[in-house]
Amino acid sequence: MRHDLDPGDWWALPAGPQNSICDVAGVTLGHFTRDEGSVQTGFTAILPHQGNLFADPVPAGAVVLNGFGKSAGLIQLIELGEIETPILLTNTFAIAAGTEALIRRAIAENPAIGRSTSTVNALVLECNDGRVNDIQALALRPSDAQAAIDAASPNPPEQGTVGAGRGMKTFGLNGGIGSASRRVGDYTLAALVLSNFGQRSELRVLGQRVPLSGEETRDKGSIIITYATDAPLDSRQLTRISRRAAAGLGRLGSHLGHGSGDIALAFTTKRPVKGEDGLLTTALLDDDALDPFFLAAVETVEEAVLNAMWHATPLPGRDGKPGASLREILKG
Amino acid sequence: MRHDLDPGDWWALPAGPQNSICDVAGVTLGHFTRDEGSVQTGFTAILPHQGNLFADPVPAGAVVLNGFGKSAGLIQLIELGEIETPILLTNTFAIAAGTEALIRRAIAENPAIGRSTSTVNALVLECNDGRVNDIQALALRPSDAQAAIDAASPNPPEQGTVGAGRGMKTFGLNGGIGSASRRVGDYTLAALVLSNFGQRSELRVLGQRVPLSGEETRDKGSIIITYATDAPLDSRQLTRISRRAAAGLGRLGSHLGHGSGDIALAFTTKRPVKGEDGLLTTALLDDDALDPFFLAAVETVEEAVLNAMWHATPLPGRDGKPGASLREILKG
Amino acid sequence: MRHDLDPGDWWALPAGPQNSICDVAGVTLGHFTRDEGSVQTGFTAILPHQGNLFADPVPAGAVVLNGFGKSAGLIQLIELGEIETPILLTNTFAIAAGTEALIRRAIAENPAIGRSTSTVNALVLECNDGRVNDIQALALRPSDAQAAIDAASPNPPEQGTVGAGRGMKTFGLNGGIGSASRRVGDYTLAALVLSNFGQRSELRVLGQRVPLSGEETRDKGSIIITYATDAPLDSRQLTRISRRAAAGLGRLGSHLGHGSGDIALAFTTKRPVKGEDGLLTTALLDDDALDPFFLAAVETVEEAVLNAMWHATPLPGRDGKPGASLREILKG
Amino acid sequence: MRHDLDPGDWWALPAGPQNSICDVAGVTLGHFTRDEGSVQTGFTAILPHQGNLFADPVPAGAVVLNGFGKSAGLIQLIELGEIETPILLTNTFAIAAGTEALIRRAIAENPAIGRSTSTVNALVLECNDGRVNDIQALALRPSDAQAAIDAASPNPPEQGTVGAGRGMKTFGLNGGIGSASRRVGDYTLAALVLSNFGQRSELRVLGQRVPLSGEETRDKGSIIITYATDAPLDSRQLTRISRRAAAGLGRLGSHLGHGSGDIALAFTTKRPVKGEDGLLTTALLDDDALDPFFLAAVETVEEAVLNAMWHATPLPGRDGKPGASLREILKG
Repeated sequence: MRHDLDPGDWWALPAGPQNSICDVAGVTLGHFTRDEGSVQTGFTAILPHQGNLFADPVPAGAVVLNGFGKSAGLIQLIELGEIETPILLTNTFAIAAGTEALIRRAIAENPAIGRSTSTVNALVLECNDGRVNDIQALALRPSDAQAAIDAASPNPPEQGTVGAGRGMKTFGLNGGIGSASRRVGDYTLAALVLSNFGQRSELRVLGQRVPLSGEETRDKGSIIITYATDAPLDSRQLTRISRRAAAGLGRLGSHLGHGSGDIALAFTTKRPVKGEDGLLTTALLDDDALDPFFLAAVETVEEAVLNAMWHATPLPGRDGKPGASLREILKG
Repeated sequence: MRHDLDPGDWWALPAGPQNSICDVAGVTLGHFTRDEGSVQTGFTAILPHQGNLFADPVPAGAVVLNGFGKSAGLIQLIELGEIETPILLTNTFAIAAGTEALIRRAIAENPAIGRSTSTVNALVLECNDGRVNDIQALALRPSDAQAAIDAASPNPPEQGTVGAGRGMKTFGLNGGIGSASRRVGDYTLAALVLSNFGQRSELRVLGQRVPLSGEETRDKGSIIITYATDAPLDSRQLTRISRRAAAGLGRLGSHLGHGSGDIALAFTTKRPVKGEDGLLTTALLDDDALDPFFLAAVETVEEAVLNAMWHATPLPGRDGKPGASLREILKG
Repeated sequence: MRHDLDPGDWWALPAGPQNSICDVAGVTLGHFTRDEGSVQTGFTAILPHQGNLFADPVPAGAVVLNGFGKSAGLIQLIELGEIETPILLTNTFAIAAGTEALIRRAIAENPAIGRSTSTVNALVLECNDGRVNDIQALALRPSDAQAAIDAASPNPPEQGTVGAGRGMKTFGLNGGIGSASRRVGDYTLAALVLSNFGQRSELRVLGQRVPLSGEETRDKGSIIITYATDAPLDSRQLTRISRRAAAGLGRLGSHLGHGSGDIALAFTTKRPVKGEDGLLTTALLDDDALDPFFLAAVETVEEAVLNAMWHATPLPGRDGKPGASLREILKG
Repeated sequence: MRHDLDPGDWWALPAGPQNSICDVAGVTLGHFTRDEGSVQTGFTAILPHQGNLFADPVPAGAVVLNGFGKSAGLIQLIELGEIETPILLTNTFAIAAGTEALIRRAIAENPAIGRSTSTVNALVLECNDGRVNDIQALALRPSDAQAAIDAASPNPPEQGTVGAGRGMKTFGLNGGIGSASRRVGDYTLAALVLSNFGQRSELRVLGQRVPLSGEETRDKGSIIITYATDAPLDSRQLTRISRRAAAGLGRLGSHLGHGSGDIALAFTTKRPVKGEDGLLTTALLDDDALDPFFLAAVETVEEAVLNAMWHATPLPGRDGKPGASLREILKG
């Protein structure tokens, strides 16, 4: 996002070509949006690579910044340090539909699941879009999740009120899906957010307060941050990167509200190589080289949230009140 | 379980009248079992009290002993220290069905959920019953979860190969649902396990090795331990109690296998009282009084697992090989 | 800190009378500064109340934001949720001296320690002041820690390059000890920081970049944040407050550097009351009331760090290069 | 320990040649014992390898099983996943002396510490030996810790009431230092315990209750478990191994008492290799290969504790009451 408030020196690191999570080679992103009257919701799918994820999982880490959330699959991710399905984002009550879709997809690719091998750990993360969407309708089905996966592409992703972000609100304005990337030497680190958090009066855009009219909101929505990188890092290091998301939220003015499920996870497309001896060979960065990745984690979450708001279509709330878009306000 | 190996002095604490989780006043337990050819699975529901749990949640804590598991609802339980739905136990791939059932039930009781209030945190825990049950069939539906809840009763519960425990195997033998309780002064602490763990050669029954014929098993199944108490304890203290489950598993010979999702949680029926000033008044036990509860946590998980095996019906595996029951072996 | 960059609307919550940790009734603060040539270091002591802390501990929580640190006493604080000694801040290599001082002081007050009762958990937290101080000299003694405790007073504290903050550097400038407070209804939440973190080029002052000349610094110093409040909260809630410190650091431009030991803890002066039945009665705030405390946690850490820099005396580094003060730079 | 109760089939895995931590090639162990009237205490040092540990740290993980403890250095160990000093064991009030010794030793080997590099993370773990030792005397000095390090040798270690174990009591009997090892394929996993926990009536020796006369004890002493291995494992995996210690304590009858600081850590002597590109190359075991290591972790902690008791000299308590040795009781 480059807008009128930009002081020009806000970002320290250069963005990748798309300034999105698809700057990480191999990563694709797909949306399924349901826009049907009171039903305004969807799924967004991130595919860490294009192969069989259950057979070839990616190293990963995760952090619960504030645990008022219902996301599925984090316990095993944290224990084993890997992701073995696409990452699905959706509304709180569609976790079940997303889980079922991922299980069926994994079984189709790996018929031994739950028979001669272990079961599969479906990773589905959520925010409550009930301010815009009729979440009680439980309108999303497993086939909708599959549609988001099928739509995944490496092209610059649609952002704002799309996919899982359809009914989300950020600092009281519309907008849910945003992304940003940074170059760190020869590597890329990128963030994709499902953003549904923030209290209207607290928003800072690149360090400046933005007067927003309208009713105050409580910070009770949640944000899910997914970091992707191609740097050679292990689960512990990816967990450390995830933890930096809190500083990015701080830059935006957030206090990590009580009712907000704030969760960050990170994966790398760089996998260890299994040798004939069964050993997994990796060549990892030293922790001493992590600082620019930490900074990239802060910058990308900040910019991804701004992008989610910038690209939003103003959608009315379930209460009939009109929505608002950051782009219009700043261009005002 | 009182059997021939019992040295008479194994347990230090007295059991409650039922020696089950229903010894904690107000707690009820219900099963739904699906026994249809290759489908051998079910739901088990624990209701911490008989009121509206979303409006009147119970203090709770939880510990992930080994995170190779897909249970839902633990993140929020740990952050907020409370449980706001019935606790459902089931097979790994029925998490989605159980979640949907709990969401629909909570909305029916609390129409504001996802509208003017936050959403609801469904608590559904699982083991993989794929050695006995055709788990790929995804045979369980939300209505089955509701049936388990509807069946909940304070009477002595059925144990063994029933409800969620239908297709579970413990140390290579049949048996999934077991319970036990202990009196600690005027209080009760009880455990209910969904047991599906253990390697055949490692079993200890009350400290003695039990020669079990048959193929070796790998410890890759999981165990879910739910503690209930009526003692006045807060979330931090209940978390400390949960952590003692590992010692009880150790007594049984377990090494907490890599592929086993071993999770313990604890709740108390004793809730804080909300005053007119909005403050929540509680009168808690001092941590210095916790030791007998810790010991009860060790004893009840040990005995509950033995009960799960003792009360089991020998069911054949999906591979057609016959099952085995601990009772028959020990009586043998 | 109210300075020329202040946009006037930066802070949402009002400060207490002193805008310091001593706004929390009963809390006192003392410094011991050693200013002897190459030795530029000290101790700072926070006393949560003026009674016997071992006999009457305060509820507390803590969070390790980045664990590159050597602080003592956190493990037991986290397990038991309480603080039982004064809180000492100092340089990394004076942890031992501080620990010994606290042990001897606790034994003097409580002769049963280590005899008929358990031992005492000394709480000593640290940053590395080696850029200004000859830390290898291990110049601080237990008596110096005792001197800081003896100096504790409820008066507005000295800030900047004083006590444990003597040799600390923040964003490349001098300054280590800072404080700030906020009123939350009838309650107060305050922060006291030992600040020694930040990379020169990243500093934001109230949302604005501040051009700082001089060599770039790496963020490898640490920050210790101590929150005090008089609100009735338990350990779990105080832990949640502590976690918000990361957002405050984010506002300042920090990326929570790899080499920085960033630790936050919080205590309340409001203790449970032990009845004749041995039960500990408390009347706690509902979690739903925590949001303003979370915001206060963000604001106070941000302002406390700025205060640490604002009140600093420019001290030269061990390498002889001159120091710099934020006040002079901003007043330019 | 092979004794009269041994049913012959208790252990599933073979021990190494020494059945001690020194079976892991490169690991050495040293004791310093102070036996002077009422002062009965000491230091025990474990050296993971014989080189410069600060320059060449070992991968490590740790778990706090029960945090009623005052050990130093765990926060950084957990964050960075490595150990950079010898591991010192001692009494609770000698943490400061041990820390100072490790800092001085590291500076002597690495003069840049606290100057051009970061400081050093001293790892010192403790139990409270106040039932036998006059812990209030603070009798141990940094030079005593250095003496333990200087005494380190790869020979079969002295066990029982020696070094840090001098004044320790286990299940009410004398004995503090014990060790055991297991072969896992071509690898070794070993445990060294500083054991000071357990309630007399709860002891199980190889699954059997042992009637012990004498006053009941409360489990309020602590146990520190250090695992060493030569298997190629990373910090996350070593953390998983550490967590299995709880099952070993369960086998012994422990309920992980409230007042007991129960901490387990694990390191491997197999370090990653730093290439010219700065990347750290490792070839790690797959998690799927961890089960025998988990079992070894359970067996070694169980046997190490029994060895600590078996090899003890009966020492009187500070109250003048005579001590007791497990060997005498079992040989009775």
